[in-house]
Amino acid sequence: MRILGIDPGLAIVGFGFVDKEGNKLTPVQYGSIQTKAHTPEEERLRDVYESMVQLIDKYKPDQVGVEKLYFSRNVTTALPVAQARGVLLLAAVQKGIPIAEYTPMMVKQAVVGYGKAEKKQVQEMVKLLLKLSAVPKPDDVADALAVAICHAHSVSLNSKLNGVLRK
Amino acid sequence: MRILGIDPGLAIVGFGFVDKEGNKLTPVQYGSIQTKAHTPEEERLRDVYESMVQLIDKYKPDQVGVEKLYFSRNVTTALPVAQARGVLLLAAVQKGIPIAEYTPMMVKQAVVGYGKAEKKQVQEMVKLLLKLSAVPKPDDVADALAVAICHAHSVSLNSKLNGVLRK
Repeated sequence: MRILGIDPGLAIVGFGFVDKEGNKLTPVQYGSIQTKAHTPEEERLRDVYESMVQLIDKYKPDQVGVEKLYFSRNVTTALPVAQARGVLLLAAVQKGIPIAEYTPMMVKQAVVGYGKAEKKQVQEMVKLLLKLSAVPKPDDVADALAVAICHAHSVSLNSKLNGVLRK
Repeated sequence: MRILGIDPGLAIVGFGFVDKEGNKLTPVQYGSIQTKAHTPEEERLRDVYESMVQLIDKYKPDQVGVEKLYFSRNVTTALPVAQARGVLLLAAVQKGIPIAEYTPMMVKQAVVGYGKAEKKQVQEMVKLLLKLSAVPKPDDVADALAVAICHAHSVSLNSKLNGVLRK
């Protein structure tokens, strides 16, 4: 199963494709979509959408995990991110790919085992779990891979639970 | 010139197509896109996007005016609206239609002549200016038509200012 983890944003979207076979996770491709500042927001949204459509077409994920927006008090910065998240969800749903959402706390819990882990700890665990030579940069990429790992865990857990329930 | 006014939302998107010839405004078509509650948000976003694409294809606006999000303290309700606004902007930019944004205060100022006008006053002026037999319902439709009127005024003003500047 191939999982796409997304860390939504307007300036930077982190993405990470991870293959899950049993408990084994293998990174396939990861990076960021970046849009130009001082460009009309609708053009940036179009760039985010088109880049994500191209990535999905190329790497054909089976499932998508995406970070839930988390709301600091700063609504001004949250809204452009939410708009970008809208076009990212659209790109996935148009291809019929199931989408799961995770709060930052769920991601930390899954990756580090502690919902209030530091960003640095999450990044080191991403590096370790995916056997990367370095922590991917910018942070949004590591965050996207963390979401993919979180979704992989969630899939494993659900299949185990279903096994138990069916007995 | 045909103007499309949009009042963004996830549950209800108001839209209004208005033709502007000189100072004359004629409503062409107006209404709302509504999505089902208790449906995954990505499916609702897809429905909003696809409906807007169909409307744009059918009524072929030259320009789009869209309400700027206005942020009450309730971020929880603002975010789904922002996500929907993202896919609405995408639908317009993909067709190459210029987009202008207006704050609720700018819309009230243009339609009623007073930036702090009551909702009811805006609705009555929309009815009057577009010679409608009744205030369109739900409120989102009247709001979308108000945005279209606001954009029409802005276009008239800009062309006058350009005329002055060129003299």
